[in-house]
Amino acid sequence: MEESLKAVYKLDFPPLARIVEHVLKQKGKRIRPALALLTAKLYKYDSDSLIPMATGVELLHTATLVHDDTIDDSFVRRGIPTVNSLWNGSTAVLVGDYLFAKAAELVSTTGNVRVIRLFAQALMTICNGELSQSFNTYNWRQTRQHYYARIGSKTAALFSLATESGAVLSGAPEPAVQAAKSYGNNLGMAFQIVDDVLDFTGEEEELGKPVGNDLLHGVLTLPTILFIEKHPEDNTLESIFGDKDKRQNLTRAIELICDSPAIEDSYKIADEFCALARQTLEDLPPNESCRSLVDLTHYVVERKK
Amino acid sequence: MEESLKAVYKLDFPPLARIVEHVLKQKGKRIRPALALLTAKLYKYDSDSLIPMATGVELLHTATLVHDDTIDDSFVRRGIPTVNSLWNGSTAVLVGDYLFAKAAELVSTTGNVRVIRLFAQALMTICNGELSQSFNTYNWRQTRQHYYARIGSKTAALFSLATESGAVLSGAPEPAVQAAKSYGNNLGMAFQIVDDVLDFTGEEEELGKPVGNDLLHGVLTLPTILFIEKHPEDNTLESIFGDKDKRQNLTRAIELICDSPAIEDSYKIADEFCALARQTLEDLPPNESCRSLVDLTHYVVERKK
Repeated sequence: MEESLKAVYKLDFPPLARIVEHVLKQKGKRIRPALALLTAKLYKYDSDSLIPMATGVELLHTATLVHDDTIDDSFVRRGIPTVNSLWNGSTAVLVGDYLFAKAAELVSTTGNVRVIRLFAQALMTICNGELSQSFNTYNWRQTRQHYYARIGSKTAALFSLATESGAVLSGAPEPAVQAAKSYGNNLGMAFQIVDDVLDFTGEEEELGKPVGNDLLHGVLTLPTILFIEKHPEDNTLESIFGDKDKRQNLTRAIELICDSPAIEDSYKIADEFCALARQTLEDLPPNESCRSLVDLTHYVVERKK
Repeated sequence: MEESLKAVYKLDFPPLARIVEHVLKQKGKRIRPALALLTAKLYKYDSDSLIPMATGVELLHTATLVHDDTIDDSFVRRGIPTVNSLWNGSTAVLVGDYLFAKAAELVSTTGNVRVIRLFAQALMTICNGELSQSFNTYNWRQTRQHYYARIGSKTAALFSLATESGAVLSGAPEPAVQAAKSYGNNLGMAFQIVDDVLDFTGEEEELGKPVGNDLLHGVLTLPTILFIEKHPEDNTLESIFGDKDKRQNLTRAIELICDSPAIEDSYKIADEFCALARQTLEDLPPNESCRSLVDLTHYVVERKK
C-alpha cells in the first residue's frame, strides 16, 4: 500500500506533486487502511481491488485532515507544518479536493459499485459530522448523546467504511459484512474518544499538534461533557470561556478536567466500545487477521498519540 | 431533474439543509446536466441512471463554485450572497465537500463503473486546473497555450464528462462516445472563453457577479493574453498592476482591453471551438437532440450572462 500511496504524488503538475508529497510523506498511523486489509484477509481477498480500496480510505482520511486544518487554521499536523500554513488556505482547499477525487478514482478501480457507494456515503456522513461540530462550538448544553452522534459521523463512519468494504471485497457472507461494519464503528468510537482524551492529557511532541486544541476552538468532547454533567449548577468552564483571553484560561480549564474523574470515565466508555467491537469479532473466522483486529482494540485505548 | 435536485436538500440535519437549499435554489443555466440529457437522448436512454448522473454533474459543478467563491472570497454568485459571505469560509468548505460526496453518491447509483470513474477523474482534472490558475496569478508570461490547458481542465473537463457519460449510459457505440466527449470538450472551451470575455464586457446585474473579477484577482484570461501578445515590449497591464491600488487601475485596464481587438479576437477563437463541436456532431444520429446540441453551440457565444 505504501507503493500505491507513493504513486499518488507522481503527478504531471509539479506544484501539486510537491504538495501532495508533503502531505503524504509524514506517515500517520495508517490504522484505517490496515482495517480494510485485515478485514479482507478474514476471507478470500484479491489484492487488485483491495490495495486501491485501502489507499482510497487513507487518502479520504488525509483529504479531511487537510480541510480540517484549513478550517481550524492549524499550523502543525503529525509534527510537520500544514498545507494551509506552508502554502495558503485556498491551495489547501484545492489540494483536499484533489485528494478526495483521487481517493474516489482509486475506489472506482475496484469495479465494485457497492463499495463505491459506501465510500461516497461515508464522505457525506463525515461532512455532516464536521458541520455538526462546527455549528455546536461553545454550545455548553451538548449531551454525551450529541457527542456520540457527532463522532459516529466524524470518525467511526470512516472506520466502518474500511472494515465493511474490506469484507465486501473479500466476498464475505452478509452477516460477516455487518459484523465487520459494526466492529469498525465501535473501534472508531473508542479511537475518537481516546483521541479527545489525549487532547487533554497528551504531550505536544508525541501528538504532533498542540494540547487543548479542541477546547481552544470551542469543541466540546467527552471529557468536557462528563465534567459539565458532574457540575450542572456551576459551569466553571463556561464562565472561564466567557472571558476573551482564551489561551490563558485554557490552561486552567485543562487542569480542572485532568484533575477530575472525567478522564478515567472517558477511558471506561472507550473500553466499553472496544468490548463491543471484540464481541462482533466472535462471529468472524478466528484466524490470524482476527487476532490482529482484537489487538487493535487494545492498542486504541493504550496508545499515547 | 429539478425534483432530483430538490431531493438533495431534504436532509436530516437542518443547518446543512438550509445551506444546501440556499445554494441550489438560485438556478444556474443548468447547461451541464442538459448536455448529459441531450447526449443520452441521441440513443436509447434509461431515466433511472440518467437523472442521477445529470444531477450529479450539476452538483459537482455547484460544489466547485462553492469552493471557488471561498477561495476568491467572493460575496455574490448568480445574484445572491455566497455561502462564505452568509455563513463563513469553514462552513463553505464543508458544504462544498458534502456536495462533492452527494454528487458521487448519485453517480454511484447509475451502477456504471465507467461513468463513476470518469466522474472521479473529471474532479481530479478540475482541481488541477484550479490549482494551475491559482499558481499562475499575476504571471504575465502566460501564453494562450497555458490558458487553453487551464480552461480545458477547469471547465471543458466537466462539459465532456456530461456528454461522454450521457453517451455511455445510453449505450452509444464507442466512436459516438468519443464524438460526444469531443463535442463537450470543444463546447466547454468556447463556453469558458465567452465567460472570460463577459467578465470584461458584461453587465454586473446580468452576470450576477462583479465585472473585472478575474483581472482583479490576477487571473489572466484570453482577452488579457491576446492584448499582451499584441504589446510584447510595452506591457501596460503589468505596470498598471505593479501599483498597489488595484481597484482603481482595474477600470483603466478593462477600458484598454475592451477598446482593443482582443475582445473580437477572443470571440473568433470561441467560434472556432464551436465549429469544431458542430463537426463532431456530424458523426452522431441527426435527431431532435442533435439539433438542440447544435443550437447550444450558437447559444454559448451569443449569451450575455
